[in-house]
Amino acid sequence: MEHAQEQEACLEQTQRYCVQRPIYNQELLQGQLHRRQRTPQTLGQKIAHSCRCSSKKAKSHLYSFLPILKWLPRYPVKEYLLGDIISGISTGVMQLPQGLAYALLAAVPPVFGLYSSFYPVLLYTFFGTSKHISIGTFAVVSMMVGSVAVREVPDEIISLDSNSTNTTDVLEYYSARDSKRVQVAVALAFLSGIIQLCLGFLRFGFLSIYLTEPLVRGFTTAAAVHVFTSQLKYLLGIKTSRYSGPLSVVYSIAAVLSKITTTNIAAFIVGLTCIVLLLIGKEINFRFKKKLPVPIPMEIIVVIIGTGVSYGMNLNESYKVDVVGNIPQGLRAPAVPEIHLIPAVFVDAVAIAIVGFSMAVSMAKIFALKHGYTIDGNQELIALGICNSVGSFFQTISITCSMSRSLVQESTGGKTQIAGTLSAVMVLLVIVAIGYLFEPLPQTVLAAIVMVNLKGMLKQFGDVMHFWRTSKIELAIWVAAFVASLFLGLDYGLLTAVTFAMITVIYRTQSPEYRILGQIPNTDIYCDVEEYEEVKEYPGIKIFQANTSLYFANSEAYTRALKKKTGVDPGALLKARRKAQKRHAREIKAANEHRKKAVLKLVSPSTNDVEASVKHEIASDDLPVNGKLEDSSVQDMSPDEHEHFVEPKSSIHSLILDFTPVNFVDSVGAKALKSIIKEYKEVGVCVCIASCSGPVVNELTRLNFFDKSVTRELLFHSIHDAVLACQVKDGSAAQADFNL
Amino acid sequence: MEHAQEQEACLEQTQRYCVQRPIYNQELLQGQLHRRQRTPQTLGQKIAHSCRCSSKKAKSHLYSFLPILKWLPRYPVKEYLLGDIISGISTGVMQLPQGLAYALLAAVPPVFGLYSSFYPVLLYTFFGTSKHISIGTFAVVSMMVGSVAVREVPDEIISLDSNSTNTTDVLEYYSARDSKRVQVAVALAFLSGIIQLCLGFLRFGFLSIYLTEPLVRGFTTAAAVHVFTSQLKYLLGIKTSRYSGPLSVVYSIAAVLSKITTTNIAAFIVGLTCIVLLLIGKEINFRFKKKLPVPIPMEIIVVIIGTGVSYGMNLNESYKVDVVGNIPQGLRAPAVPEIHLIPAVFVDAVAIAIVGFSMAVSMAKIFALKHGYTIDGNQELIALGICNSVGSFFQTISITCSMSRSLVQESTGGKTQIAGTLSAVMVLLVIVAIGYLFEPLPQTVLAAIVMVNLKGMLKQFGDVMHFWRTSKIELAIWVAAFVASLFLGLDYGLLTAVTFAMITVIYRTQSPEYRILGQIPNTDIYCDVEEYEEVKEYPGIKIFQANTSLYFANSEAYTRALKKKTGVDPGALLKARRKAQKRHAREIKAANEHRKKAVLKLVSPSTNDVEASVKHEIASDDLPVNGKLEDSSVQDMSPDEHEHFVEPKSSIHSLILDFTPVNFVDSVGAKALKSIIKEYKEVGVCVCIASCSGPVVNELTRLNFFDKSVTRELLFHSIHDAVLACQVKDGSAAQADFNL
Repeated sequence: MEHAQEQEACLEQTQRYCVQRPIYNQELLQGQLHRRQRTPQTLGQKIAHSCRCSSKKAKSHLYSFLPILKWLPRYPVKEYLLGDIISGISTGVMQLPQGLAYALLAAVPPVFGLYSSFYPVLLYTFFGTSKHISIGTFAVVSMMVGSVAVREVPDEIISLDSNSTNTTDVLEYYSARDSKRVQVAVALAFLSGIIQLCLGFLRFGFLSIYLTEPLVRGFTTAAAVHVFTSQLKYLLGIKTSRYSGPLSVVYSIAAVLSKITTTNIAAFIVGLTCIVLLLIGKEINFRFKKKLPVPIPMEIIVVIIGTGVSYGMNLNESYKVDVVGNIPQGLRAPAVPEIHLIPAVFVDAVAIAIVGFSMAVSMAKIFALKHGYTIDGNQELIALGICNSVGSFFQTISITCSMSRSLVQESTGGKTQIAGTLSAVMVLLVIVAIGYLFEPLPQTVLAAIVMVNLKGMLKQFGDVMHFWRTSKIELAIWVAAFVASLFLGLDYGLLTAVTFAMITVIYRTQSPEYRILGQIPNTDIYCDVEEYEEVKEYPGIKIFQANTSLYFANSEAYTRALKKKTGVDPGALLKARRKAQKRHAREIKAANEHRKKAVLKLVSPSTNDVEASVKHEIASDDLPVNGKLEDSSVQDMSPDEHEHFVEPKSSIHSLILDFTPVNFVDSVGAKALKSIIKEYKEVGVCVCIASCSGPVVNELTRLNFFDKSVTRELLFHSIHDAVLACQVKDGSAAQADFNL
Repeated sequence: MEHAQEQEACLEQTQRYCVQRPIYNQELLQGQLHRRQRTPQTLGQKIAHSCRCSSKKAKSHLYSFLPILKWLPRYPVKEYLLGDIISGISTGVMQLPQGLAYALLAAVPPVFGLYSSFYPVLLYTFFGTSKHISIGTFAVVSMMVGSVAVREVPDEIISLDSNSTNTTDVLEYYSARDSKRVQVAVALAFLSGIIQLCLGFLRFGFLSIYLTEPLVRGFTTAAAVHVFTSQLKYLLGIKTSRYSGPLSVVYSIAAVLSKITTTNIAAFIVGLTCIVLLLIGKEINFRFKKKLPVPIPMEIIVVIIGTGVSYGMNLNESYKVDVVGNIPQGLRAPAVPEIHLIPAVFVDAVAIAIVGFSMAVSMAKIFALKHGYTIDGNQELIALGICNSVGSFFQTISITCSMSRSLVQESTGGKTQIAGTLSAVMVLLVIVAIGYLFEPLPQTVLAAIVMVNLKGMLKQFGDVMHFWRTSKIELAIWVAAFVASLFLGLDYGLLTAVTFAMITVIYRTQSPEYRILGQIPNTDIYCDVEEYEEVKEYPGIKIFQANTSLYFANSEAYTRALKKKTGVDPGALLKARRKAQKRHAREIKAANEHRKKAVLKLVSPSTNDVEASVKHEIASDDLPVNGKLEDSSVQDMSPDEHEHFVEPKSSIHSLILDFTPVNFVDSVGAKALKSIIKEYKEVGVCVCIASCSGPVVNELTRLNFFDKSVTRELLFHSIHDAVLACQVKDGSAAQADFNL
């Protein structure tokens, strides 16, 4: 193998790129190589393999289903416990106000938010694989639950008119309405949990990949706007119905604006004060992140102050400020969720299941990456599914991971799921012991907490500028997700956004950039002729590239672009040729008739133009003989006509289609390709295909692409191979012409 | 430029592939080249350009809107007229029976089928660009119209029970029902026409590309089954309601079977005879295609015989065979379609508009290719839109091109739209003069005509085998289109099928083949190591390729596959390293404590193992000093433990990602790529990217992919460049190590 030696010698001396080898087309290359014998596993073997059972396998399955078995026995008490305790307490004091506030968002009484901050968190300890996320109530999911609950059990406007009925009736109505809403929310949690479980067991964790980042950000921004508008009325102390479904944001704002005059000043002042306090707290926590051992638990402080002030000043009775109200003490006995509600909430449950999962898993991934462990998407689905479905028997609403709490849990030194468990225990203490203390807490304080927690999500409006700079398509996904989720509601919005994201992928494969390539002199590198000054095209050879695969949705555009970019349209050329031939035939005919006339005239030479006729006769004498027009006859015609007599010919002899970017071909694409090759052949242009990858060649073979006229010899390993081969062919053709 | 000379010399001598150049990475290459100055058109210029008005432009717009202006003045009467007349008559005699039969399918009285075979055909002459397609009624579209008409104006089952009411009532009911159905059908034609017009003016002709061939074939096969089942009752002379909507096929068959005992034997015999005659006629026409000057017009023959027999034997009254019935003479005055029906039929109108257009345009394209002219998809949309919308004012139903008639029109020598016009004139004659003659025609004859015309479409069941062999994905599209259209109805079926076809594209980009590449010795060619025996991998270098772009839906799978295929998982490696370090630290600690103890023991040498302790002390003496474990201490450990003490290292030093198949990257993909590079860097593996195309580099730049740690120097022009660079780097690194 002297080439090898040459190559190596070359490499060692100069560290250059040196290649010397034959020009390879597919035919030649395959002739020199030997296909490796593959012994594919039969279906039976595969089944047998996957069904094989062993104690090791069983153990690994058990460990993956109950991750706690793996990490708890190895729990390094000394190293981890302190961190987990501090983190657990910090998270627990957030669970409490957030549980109360997000219950408001979910249109259920506050105590159900506390339940949801306890059971699922406890369950997650056993089944979850992430060590840092804080499971529990979350604004976006609570909002989705709330809109379903309101849709299924709407406010009745008559009952809101408190003058016509007495207070007891109104209270009864409210409590009946709320208990129905709880049923809906619980059924929703049950169903979304079951869906998550099913997806998890079916290993459908990959579904979350469709929720690409711009989509999720657009969606959560829209959710934040939803949440914000829904809290306005609590902040202002205005009584309006709550809306759900398409355009609910618009209706909510309109309803609040129309009743803006009934604003409860006391509630508004309390709310605004809380907002200011919370914002200050956030700012301090952010600024002095490193100096503070734990972040200031501003939310619980605000709740405690708010409760105290409300109790002290009797805000509810004196100033008609709405308060949280009845918080029953102790836990409830488990109950089966209302199964009959399931058909009505199925679509919503799917949306909640997917949103909940994707929120949790994206947060979990961030922490896993940071701390160097792995999470299992499918197990996360199962864990969340168990949290939701088992929890729903204890009247919890749908939960997922909360961003703000997770960040606190991680930053305060939480090491394992123990931190979460401790926060759950704290919530439990509140439920069984001191819950009733929070009864005088004004709702406006909770609204303030919810709103301030939206800060991060609302900041995402800045994404628009970011995506504008980086990628217009991702901007489009963001905007589509935002607009759809804002106006259609979060469930249909999400569906629309996912569909839109899919369509952008289609769009990318479908509207590629078409380019003519040229060579960078003295290399085998080809790139866009319009990009660099140095790039040169070989005369007579055009290299065409479209950066996409070739399939039904773009094969027509491909053909069109090819004809336009190369400037050679076989159809037009053939038409021109036919026209020329026809004209030619007519000319011959005319000339013949002319000759006859001339002969006649010669026979009877009575006119003046005898000489001219004779001239004509001589000139057109040999026309019918060899079928070629001589100069003498051409001279008679106008220069414009002259052009038509030269057989129209294409300016190129070879067309190279760069198939580097082609990853798949379907039957429509293969047909288009074949007709391109045939059409160009008719006008004398040889079409070669360069850099066709192995899988595509196999696909083409299966699609019966290759036959006598289209052989594998048209496939070249690279553009440079194809160019060299075309030059060689043209050279020999030219030489052949020359020799003739 | 000595290289150029070298190259050329090499080429001339051996016709080989010779390249000698520096190893190029993106940085180096761009440094040597000069970007071409592009002066992009400003938006203003573009607008100005597109708004510029000239007489030439106006003329070309007029010509494209009214193609007849272009071809009629140049109509070569001598050459074309005879062919057009023969073809027009042949097509005309088919328009008649098909018009009657397809009206039955569309659930409207037969005369409306005749209207639809006249007005649109005439209009198409002016606006159409295809010279060979025969516009008019078509089975699939008529079927879709029929199912909408039946859905909107259902059969009332009570009224079918003729015993309870007298005959006049029943007849009145039927005529009222039929006139309502006509209103629906006409409104549908109007709306679908308007939709086609809008799409045409908006240049949305490309929409038909989404109807890929397997989809259309699956859809039309399902439509054929629909049509077939709907005609069964006419063939058998059974009276059942007509069904529409999902599962209508099943209901129709069940209804016919449940009443199979009421079969009208006379009708069945007539129908069956007709079917046999028509099949024989088809066979003769096919066998003696070349010998027959025109195909035998078997349909009209059957109609005439059927009418004659029915009239002679008084089939209607004597044998209770249903006949066509009242065919009013003359044309109707134009009337505005019932606009108020539009909201109810909007979705169906969209489906009919798209199906009608795609049928016409696919047929037109076939003929255009055969006869060497071009058709304009957008103008076809406009033409069909005018045919439908203007026609609807004259009570036509939705039309498109009929395959069977178009084939006859072309094969009998039709040259231009004149043939179509003549066939329309024939239909007009029938309408105004002899239409009433066909009143005794039995419906079973029309059912026979419809059924025999389905032969070609039903043959498409053979596609299943064909697609099974060529492409499983296209088979899936066929099956999805067929099953969805069969069971969900044609409108939702089409929608489902298009969605499914889109999803297959996503699937193709999302589940690529992952491969490890190796070099074919002595070349710069790299291919799958599992494919050929000759392919070799360089030691320490892995080349990874996924034949897809890198974006949100597959970036995670890409990372996973990369780790699995290359066998190097940085996460696992780091974990192992950390473990080893920890164990190492513990060992050191243990050793230190041991030493302390040993020292203590030395101080009070009362135990038996003094010597052993001393040995230990000496052995572990230098441990804390240089942080490396010496052999002496390692000897104490089991061989299993021993392994952990060698710092875990990856088996490769360089990883080359082949980006040849990557056509686009989004932010998620770029992030994944960046984290791959960083992760591998941490474990000492250098990641290079090879063959990254220009647009992808630009995208990566926009996505802020490049920074201090990830530079353009990681991008190599080709795999071979990257391999050479990695070898050089590793060589010098090894040398550096050696020199130390």
